[in-house]
Amino acid sequence: MDPRIREHAQTVVDHSTRVEKGDNVVVSAPAEAEDLVTAVCELVGERGGYVVTTSANPRFMRAFLRAADHEEFETPSHQLALVEEADVLINIRSEMNASEQSDVSPETNAAWRRANKPVQVEALSKRWCLTQFPAKGSAQLAGMSTEAYENFVYDAVSLDWEKQAEHQQQMVELLDDADEVHIKSGDETDVTMSVAGNITINDKGEHNLPGGEVFTAPVKDSVDGEVYFDLPLYRQGREVSGVRVTFEEGKVVEYSAERNEEVLDGVFNTDEGARYLGELGIGMNRNIDQFTYNMLFDEKMGDTVHMAVGTAYPETVGEENEVNESAEHVDMIVDMSEDSVIELDGEVVQRNGTFVFEEDF
Amino acid sequence: MDPRIREHAQTVVDHSTRVEKGDNVVVSAPAEAEDLVTAVCELVGERGGYVVTTSANPRFMRAFLRAADHEEFETPSHQLALVEEADVLINIRSEMNASEQSDVSPETNAAWRRANKPVQVEALSKRWCLTQFPAKGSAQLAGMSTEAYENFVYDAVSLDWEKQAEHQQQMVELLDDADEVHIKSGDETDVTMSVAGNITINDKGEHNLPGGEVFTAPVKDSVDGEVYFDLPLYRQGREVSGVRVTFEEGKVVEYSAERNEEVLDGVFNTDEGARYLGELGIGMNRNIDQFTYNMLFDEKMGDTVHMAVGTAYPETVGEENEVNESAEHVDMIVDMSEDSVIELDGEVVQRNGTFVFEEDF
Repeated sequence: MDPRIREHAQTVVDHSTRVEKGDNVVVSAPAEAEDLVTAVCELVGERGGYVVTTSANPRFMRAFLRAADHEEFETPSHQLALVEEADVLINIRSEMNASEQSDVSPETNAAWRRANKPVQVEALSKRWCLTQFPAKGSAQLAGMSTEAYENFVYDAVSLDWEKQAEHQQQMVELLDDADEVHIKSGDETDVTMSVAGNITINDKGEHNLPGGEVFTAPVKDSVDGEVYFDLPLYRQGREVSGVRVTFEEGKVVEYSAERNEEVLDGVFNTDEGARYLGELGIGMNRNIDQFTYNMLFDEKMGDTVHMAVGTAYPETVGEENEVNESAEHVDMIVDMSEDSVIELDGEVVQRNGTFVFEEDF
Repeated sequence: MDPRIREHAQTVVDHSTRVEKGDNVVVSAPAEAEDLVTAVCELVGERGGYVVTTSANPRFMRAFLRAADHEEFETPSHQLALVEEADVLINIRSEMNASEQSDVSPETNAAWRRANKPVQVEALSKRWCLTQFPAKGSAQLAGMSTEAYENFVYDAVSLDWEKQAEHQQQMVELLDDADEVHIKSGDETDVTMSVAGNITINDKGEHNLPGGEVFTAPVKDSVDGEVYFDLPLYRQGREVSGVRVTFEEGKVVEYSAERNEEVLDGVFNTDEGARYLGELGIGMNRNIDQFTYNMLFDEKMGDTVHMAVGTAYPETVGEENEVNESAEHVDMIVDMSEDSVIELDGEVVQRNGTFVFEEDF
């Protein structure tokens, strides 16, 4: 086994999820991630926890969803029971064919997400970590050789997270002190939102590995303006690109995509909360230096901001504000490297991807 | 996908476990069985059920057990919760390396089985099926090419189960009417046991696919004599062969094995019930014509009987009799093809593998 896999497992088990004696751990992964799951199981055993491993094989879900073809699903109570009894959830992504679910209808996907919302809500209340194993399909999606992609992934996950957190803390403090955020990029993105009363989280590789962003929740009805998400996203096995969204009083009132717009139809029609932003995130991980069609990495890139429609992380929402609830949480990215600024209460804190506290500002 | 895989899945879902609308199904399988799991998920979706897929990868269990190295484990309550909320459990065997767990100590294995007994008891109360996918490692264990092994497996699982059940019913009636069973084979096997008051089950491919046996429980303290299990078994990744066991008033008072006797030490020391028989089975499936080191098939062969130490199936034990309880259930086989008889209350019902109701008797 590549020794970096055992190091990765150790970061997941000890840093990201802090597995302890007696913890019930659920590891969900596709078969390709076998080595990483093995290393995680070994460490859970050493720490005195217990592990159930579930198969996140997209062929299984595709076969099930296409055959079921319901307009509504029930919440699978055995899945819910498993998550309820868990202390730690470790989700490992790893693609052999990133298009595996491309022929499931967006309506069916949306119905399935609605039915699974109680499972998601329960999962978010646990110690959890989403991470990546460098499978060949993920490398292909990134347009990289398997070996180069392995290096990319292991460089990203093995960052000095304490040092990274110190760097990010500067942005956390700026955001926590701010009321209004104004993001401008090129001719097409000009959006304002309030973050007053909400809480900014310093992501140092816990819920997401790699980490490397700071994120908060916009005040639900405060978002106004237009955004052109100039980096594509991969959703339900399909590339969605050239997304334009118009917000009025927080709500998505208009949207379009240059490619696979019907995926957005499914997302925005899942429920009411899917039409409001649940997250504003600012990428700060300079080790992630290329776009790989993988949101877990892309949203952490140093020259980007992302906004997610759908559910807000409760820990980012202050007591006075409403937590946006939805079965969806779809991140989309704006490239901030050129002709772009982030302003907080009228002060520029990032220009063309460089932060006010960085040398080249 | 090989069309026989979809047929196999249909037998599992519709014949063996009778999946219906709203059923919670758990499919447990190694990655090699991906095609069969996909076909099962599709059918569960069609029937209106819900499916959770768990990974039965022996590398995960090996890594966990070796690292944990406990003398006692707790029952993993998340695993138990999953099984409690399930209606149907489908376990698919499929080896890539049948020796994967060969370096886990028998003591650790026994401790783990004890901790999991509540999960096993719960599982046996559901609709469940154990079946086989013809992976390369399973073929290797059988000493067969992958293609020949595929044919072997699909021939065995696609039997006309109603017709087979009719054939077997003759033996069910003989056993249900009998009090004492006497089994003699060669110089070394001569054992008697009572089945008075217990119930014989006609296995037509439900809990086991392939099926093809009739089985009951010996009255717990009635077993007396010596048995030489002349066919080997594969247990915890190791071949155990040349097993000799002496029973007195039901209890195993002496045992030995020509190979890997320490595996038996682990089994017999798991708990008190592991030293008593829980099952007497008589193989009646003439389609299984070769030994493949796989108990699911071997115990169904037409010229064999098997006895399992450990837990009894509750449905085989009459109200007046005690159900033997154990965290173990280990089947071992006696070859009855030569110099052998089965007598019921002094009447010969099988001689050299041929039953009294068969033509060549």
